[in-house]
Amino acid sequence: MFKKTDKGFISKYQPVINTTDAVIFTLPPPEMAAEPVVIVYRRTDPDAPYFDRWALPGGMIHTDSDANDRAACERIVREKLGMPPVYMEQLQTFSGANRDPRGWSSSVVYFTLLPWEELSDWWATKPNAQLVPLSTSRKNLISLAFDHEEILRVAIERIQAKAHYSTLPCMLLPKHFTIAQMHGMYEALQGREINMAAFRRKVDKLDFLSQVKGAFEGGAQRPAQMYRMKHREPTLFDRGL
Amino acid sequence: MFKKTDKGFISKYQPVINTTDAVIFTLPPPEMAAEPVVIVYRRTDPDAPYFDRWALPGGMIHTDSDANDRAACERIVREKLGMPPVYMEQLQTFSGANRDPRGWSSSVVYFTLLPWEELSDWWATKPNAQLVPLSTSRKNLISLAFDHEEILRVAIERIQAKAHYSTLPCMLLPKHFTIAQMHGMYEALQGREINMAAFRRKVDKLDFLSQVKGAFEGGAQRPAQMYRMKHREPTLFDRGL
Repeated sequence: MFKKTDKGFISKYQPVINTTDAVIFTLPPPEMAAEPVVIVYRRTDPDAPYFDRWALPGGMIHTDSDANDRAACERIVREKLGMPPVYMEQLQTFSGANRDPRGWSSSVVYFTLLPWEELSDWWATKPNAQLVPLSTSRKNLISLAFDHEEILRVAIERIQAKAHYSTLPCMLLPKHFTIAQMHGMYEALQGREINMAAFRRKVDKLDFLSQVKGAFEGGAQRPAQMYRMKHREPTLFDRGL
Repeated sequence: MFKKTDKGFISKYQPVINTTDAVIFTLPPPEMAAEPVVIVYRRTDPDAPYFDRWALPGGMIHTDSDANDRAACERIVREKLGMPPVYMEQLQTFSGANRDPRGWSSSVVYFTLLPWEELSDWWATKPNAQLVPLSTSRKNLISLAFDHEEILRVAIERIQAKAHYSTLPCMLLPKHFTIAQMHGMYEALQGREINMAAFRRKVDKLDFLSQVKGAFEGGAQRPAQMYRMKHREPTLFDRGL
């Protein structure tokens, strides 16, 4: 099955193109976007497929230096954005004969979160990037390279499920936030309205927020208390939201 | 990054060894095993790594014929067992420089279920295989090739989670079964005792079983009613078991 050469063992089959891609979720401030977004890049190599099209940030696995697929993905996000994700988990591997015109390819895709506070410097450099609101993607209003629309669909299902049962999406919020802000983000992630009173009850029950003393947002009429997460690790709602 | 050759595009990096492996769960009859098992094979190629060791069934991706990683995994299970899994979903991709002595490798691993009714003919051929009870694996009593012990750990976590919130594991049961049999399987999958009265209440509430008229198991004293699934698709418990 394998032939030993000066480049190591080579399969008798045409080699696979091994890549990794990252779906990076972030939450820009309200004046920029009304909901969470995903970062896409314009492809700038005229010799590569899908030139000038938008795509998820990704790249080849470097077998000479990447310890594994996760390390490869972290390296690529770091190269593109100047920092690694604050949260990453494997989403799924997408592979096959037809997804890359260069040949049989396999991409290990990661689901990642990065708070906007850490991204604002990168955005100020006017990168060759675009922020795609979740609703734009849900309505198929964005056209992406390769099978990246399908990947995005799977990633949005994942964050929607997580928004149903865990506090993980709170990693996207700024350090201090109001319950209304958190509620709005959960509604946007789930793509549906969530009863505010029931939401508050569930949040209270989990006891994962601290009031930020003396910090309020909004007019003098009814200023809203600001909160912060008690600990960074996400917890699970005992019933779905 | 890529060089076009008569074998297609070749990366400047040493190529990855692309494989797929299957974690196959099944439930043999009580006289064979008291709990669900996973199928492992003895490696028989003296020129391949881990010769004579036990490993999950797996193999190379054939880029000339496999449409994608899922098709490759299905082909391999079919080659080894004579039939495809009745259920399969991607578990996770395991990759890196150190998991295969031949070089940087990547395996897309599938989580699969096969009822014993379909496997008994295969087992009668005395394959070069072993059935590993879940508890044996949980106690680290089995030594497997490559990183397959780690893969098995992740797969057992997955079936344990599924046994917590879904009826999917019922695909492992014979066509007709008693509640006690189902309860015992859920206990084995979760690796803990489950209160029988609460279990019955949750099962009743989901309304996914039909009584098999006139079919009972056990002595004349207190014969147990036999049931079958109303439909093949798994449903979710509204709260964890």
